Amino acid sequence: MDVIEYTPTRDQYAYTFGGVAPVMRVKPGTALRLWSDDAFGGVLRSVDDLSSAKVDLRFVNPQTGPFYVEGAEPGDTLVLHFVAIEPAREWGASAAIPFFGGMTSTDRIATLQEPLPDTTWIYDVDSARRTVGFVARHSDHRIELPIEPMLGTVGVAPTGGEARSSLVPERFGGNMDTPEMRAGSTVYVGVNVEGALFSIGDGHYRQGEGEACGTAVEGAMTSTIIVDLVKGHAPAWPRIEDDTHIMTVGSSRPMEDSWRIANAELVRWVSLLHGMHVMDAYQLCSQITQVPVANVVDANYSVVVKAAKALLPTGDVLGGLHADLRARARSLGTV
Amino acid sequence: MDVIEYTPTRDQYAYTFGGVAPVMRVKPGTALRLWSDDAFGGVLRSVDDLSSAKVDLRFVNPQTGPFYVEGAEPGDTLVLHFVAIEPAREWGASAAIPFFGGMTSTDRIATLQEPLPDTTWIYDVDSARRTVGFVARHSDHRIELPIEPMLGTVGVAPTGGEARSSLVPERFGGNMDTPEMRAGSTVYVGVNVEGALFSIGDGHYRQGEGEACGTAVEGAMTSTIIVDLVKGHAPAWPRIEDDTHIMTVGSSRPMEDSWRIANAELVRWVSLLHGMHVMDAYQLCSQITQVPVANVVDANYSVVVKAAKALLPTGDVLGGLHADLRARARSLGTV
Amino acid sequence: MDVIEYTPTRDQYAYTFGGVAPVMRVKPGTALRLWSDDAFGGVLRSVDDLSSAKVDLRFVNPQTGPFYVEGAEPGDTLVLHFVAIEPAREWGASAAIPFFGGMTSTDRIATLQEPLPDTTWIYDVDSARRTVGFVARHSDHRIELPIEPMLGTVGVAPTGGEARSSLVPERFGGNMDTPEMRAGSTVYVGVNVEGALFSIGDGHYRQGEGEACGTAVEGAMTSTIIVDLVKGHAPAWPRIEDDTHIMTVGSSRPMEDSWRIANAELVRWVSLLHGMHVMDAYQLCSQITQVPVANVVDANYSVVVKAAKALLPTGDVLGGLHADLRARARSLGTV
Amino acid sequence: MDVIEYTPTRDQYAYTFGGVAPVMRVKPGTALRLWSDDAFGGVLRSVDDLSSAKVDLRFVNPQTGPFYVEGAEPGDTLVLHFVAIEPAREWGASAAIPFFGGMTSTDRIATLQEPLPDTTWIYDVDSARRTVGFVARHSDHRIELPIEPMLGTVGVAPTGGEARSSLVPERFGGNMDTPEMRAGSTVYVGVNVEGALFSIGDGHYRQGEGEACGTAVEGAMTSTIIVDLVKGHAPAWPRIEDDTHIMTVGSSRPMEDSWRIANAELVRWVSLLHGMHVMDAYQLCSQITQVPVANVVDANYSVVVKAAKALLPTGDVLGGLHADLRARARSLGTV
Repeated sequence: MDVIEYTPTRDQYAYTFGGVAPVMRVKPGTALRLWSDDAFGGVLRSVDDLSSAKVDLRFVNPQTGPFYVEGAEPGDTLVLHFVAIEPAREWGASAAIPFFGGMTSTDRIATLQEPLPDTTWIYDVDSARRTVGFVARHSDHRIELPIEPMLGTVGVAPTGGEARSSLVPERFGGNMDTPEMRAGSTVYVGVNVEGALFSIGDGHYRQGEGEACGTAVEGAMTSTIIVDLVKGHAPAWPRIEDDTHIMTVGSSRPMEDSWRIANAELVRWVSLLHGMHVMDAYQLCSQITQVPVANVVDANYSVVVKAAKALLPTGDVLGGLHADLRARARSLGTV
Repeated sequence: MDVIEYTPTRDQYAYTFGGVAPVMRVKPGTALRLWSDDAFGGVLRSVDDLSSAKVDLRFVNPQTGPFYVEGAEPGDTLVLHFVAIEPAREWGASAAIPFFGGMTSTDRIATLQEPLPDTTWIYDVDSARRTVGFVARHSDHRIELPIEPMLGTVGVAPTGGEARSSLVPERFGGNMDTPEMRAGSTVYVGVNVEGALFSIGDGHYRQGEGEACGTAVEGAMTSTIIVDLVKGHAPAWPRIEDDTHIMTVGSSRPMEDSWRIANAELVRWVSLLHGMHVMDAYQLCSQITQVPVANVVDANYSVVVKAAKALLPTGDVLGGLHADLRARARSLGTV
Repeated sequence: MDVIEYTPTRDQYAYTFGGVAPVMRVKPGTALRLWSDDAFGGVLRSVDDLSSAKVDLRFVNPQTGPFYVEGAEPGDTLVLHFVAIEPAREWGASAAIPFFGGMTSTDRIATLQEPLPDTTWIYDVDSARRTVGFVARHSDHRIELPIEPMLGTVGVAPTGGEARSSLVPERFGGNMDTPEMRAGSTVYVGVNVEGALFSIGDGHYRQGEGEACGTAVEGAMTSTIIVDLVKGHAPAWPRIEDDTHIMTVGSSRPMEDSWRIANAELVRWVSLLHGMHVMDAYQLCSQITQVPVANVVDANYSVVVKAAKALLPTGDVLGGLHADLRARARSLGTV
Repeated sequence: MDVIEYTPTRDQYAYTFGGVAPVMRVKPGTALRLWSDDAFGGVLRSVDDLSSAKVDLRFVNPQTGPFYVEGAEPGDTLVLHFVAIEPAREWGASAAIPFFGGMTSTDRIATLQEPLPDTTWIYDVDSARRTVGFVARHSDHRIELPIEPMLGTVGVAPTGGEARSSLVPERFGGNMDTPEMRAGSTVYVGVNVEGALFSIGDGHYRQGEGEACGTAVEGAMTSTIIVDLVKGHAPAWPRIEDDTHIMTVGSSRPMEDSWRIANAELVRWVSLLHGMHVMDAYQLCSQITQVPVANVVDANYSVVVKAAKALLPTGDVLGGLHADLRARARSLGTV
């Protein structure tokens, strides 16, 4: 399998899902190696670069893409398998952006209070040790944290002619900001428009669940992805599979609705996959699910609900596609 | 002042705010008389027309427009004064759409329960008595309700290249579904793109606050609107003024956030308008505001916060523009 | 009808609904004239009295009561008719309490921001003009606002052995903070324990809907109340009736749940009262309700849903009890 | 160290936190071995025992206790170390209770829909294999699930004279329903009243995060607990420590507020514990926390935020008390 490399120029980035012409056509089965800039477009390079001066929140999370997947039609399932997601810079950046994040009032949770201090942190990448260095701004603390690369945004064009900011997670995927979007995972997203028009971006060298301050260790990334397509079977909301778990992602407000969406999706998925009555699937899932919060800071909050395959009846998703993609990934020279 | 009449053909409707080319250019100061179809595109004509069979929720609230306002630039304030909003059909329709509305689980408030029965109600318009007739579907009750016409959707193109469904209320206005959007009111909306690109639709012959079942007495409407423009002064969220009150509208989830947005907007508006410290404006507003809920059923919930001019210090909004528009409206032959 | 007067001493106040012994036994049909202190226990007497120094939020809203209503048993309906609610002091107080109220982070909406400045406002009562005077703290503004007296808290002992702070609105009533709790209104609350054990307090000389800053124009009050009892018929949540409207109150979080509770209660009430199918009652209520927010600042948020009797079929609540109470009120010498 | 055994009689259970006299006085340092009944009081013994017939939701989660801890005063920290939590019956029960749980409308998320079918599941305990058996009600599926015992409720008497149902999680602990409340964990709760008055119950043989259907594999339990007391240092919300993580628990509505509470608590804890500026602690926590949802079904939703000690600076909580308790636990003959 060949790998198509693609690095966008600055004016080739997209800032919405939908409403943007594709940068490339790809056939199902193709492997892509994509360069993506960080959420800030690379402008926070030192602790003196403040987000209030350098970042326009309408144009963050620059998207690499969109890609037109040949043959993809509304109702189909876009399949993206993450072969590798690797830091493409020697440093990552994080920031407490005024009135953005989880521990501050925002444009939605509107109060009359002053913002928290606009602060930037820079993390050095130690490639050998696979760590990034947290350096406190107000004391001498320095802590090496393991690199655990993931993509914050993976999405397709929405339905109904909408175009949504790359800050938004929704049915179409988007800015879900879950650490589960890592190498070794396969994501399934329903196709809404011809060609699917998927894009990726917002790489995180690591991120805590919830992404509390609103930003992770944001970093440019090189992502190797196998693109595939299943005709029909479009899930209503994004699904993720890895070697051990099946997962659903819900993104809405308030956060209990994100959970309800993801949990209802998982229950129905288990019910259908294993020929189990929906009440029995409800009961079983109630006793086995893990529920790691993804983000509580974006336009919608995202919650992941996951079930261990070991605690479910035997049965493959989409004919064992994930295992097949893992095999294909191994065949790539790059992994 | 001349009045430009415009009745769209079926293929001229828009179903998003943003992402659509304008149907007409208008100069500030122009009066428009616009025909708009009902939320369902006129397809629910008898109680046997069920929404599950006839309505695609991705394409409801057909918008008349968008209109390109000459000279409008980002940061300006679009001003729309509603001279008259009048029923344009002899009947209105309402429906309990499966998994849509306030007394049912939805795609967001996801549960495993069955939907409520898909039900349609048709209301006859009695033009002489200015009533619509509620006719119970399961008993002999019939009640005449006063016609109180309003527009559910009034909005401009969003910022950041977004295009949003005409089901959505947001910063750009949209599907706010407030009875305050009635004849005699002036609405102020911030301009995000050149020409503002405003549209209107979703006429309601009457609506309870909250729009509990998800639909009002939906009806085609003829709306006479004076379009004006104020350079600069763009409000962050829509504002409404009538002869007695100033109002702000917030639209988000959960509903307390909608209220927070609208209340913070009103406090800051009062502070700026009357030269009052923000803490004093906060205190004063706390004792005088009325807070009628607009909708609890759309993609975002909308809440109106209003203050009586009689309980505020003397002082005109935008130089008394609303009074001026009222005078201009009286000069139109149509009122 | 005689009127029993009762003014508590400082150590006779209750600070919870439930968990407190009654101060008096009353027979159904009794009229009470009750003195209640303000929410702060009268300690904020000048703008230099700061809430952070003088107020313990665990002991606010001192309750006059509880009263044991003879014959009241779980499942019965306690009926309180407000004959008169009149200011009992020459001044009222309001405050922006740190981390309390709607335009600030709180102990629930936890952020890392600094609080708003702790500020107190004192309002003079002008009995002749029936106004209270708002006096800005940071400018020369002074505005006379009409006195519109109401009780913030009216409640009974909860079920299940619970005792709840007088800051809490819930099924048992409590700190609903709705301006609808005014003279001329009748409130219906379900009885949970023998004797009902109702109490009142938290008088407001006036209050905006939402009670945005967390406190109204708080004032000591003299309330004349007729106490009555209907065997059975306990509503799940508090109901209010006045001459023109029937109303329900929901109190929960998030605010859409408060609305859902109140709206579902009203729909079921209309359905039962008028022999209308619940789907028809749902439709009718959707077109006629008004939804004034009560508070967005307490332990639970409260929302009122009201329907005009003029837009409902003919039919009396509980055999016309409200009209009867109005007549009884007129017979009292005090009105 | 001796171990005091206590098994309540049926009339010795408590159903509230607060408002109940203690069953026993214990000295700090005491080890208790407590028997607790299941959430249903043991009445669901076969799949034909339906919750609608047998369970009164006002009296579930029977509490073993409360225990009066000698010397405990408001502002102190109650410390409970779970030495062992072991199933005390051969079966557990779970149920989909009508209008209770996460995938249904409830008394709060009020809709007009029908409830899900009232259904009971019984799980056999296989002590040798340490599994419970899920048996589908509508198909032949049977799955052995690992026993992972935990306590749903651990709490003290609330402040301000409140008494709260044992269904409620709050500042005082209570029905948090987190799988982190397992053997090997130490919980810290602030003392509100003299003697603390703690109780435990609601054992779960296993539970998925979120407790989606509203009930876990509910089972009677034998819990061995070391009770300790730290003067002062009362945390505002419950904290948990195990060998690898420190954790905070927030319980409120909507769920983002539960998270905000827990996250703000963790940030401040890390800041204080490690002498780190709160903005730096905010940043560090943002990159390292795990956020497993505890429950989305109780009166308040509970969210856990946890940080790995390995990713924090070196530094012991309360002088290494947890490690000391682990050592004391090992010295008990029972482990």
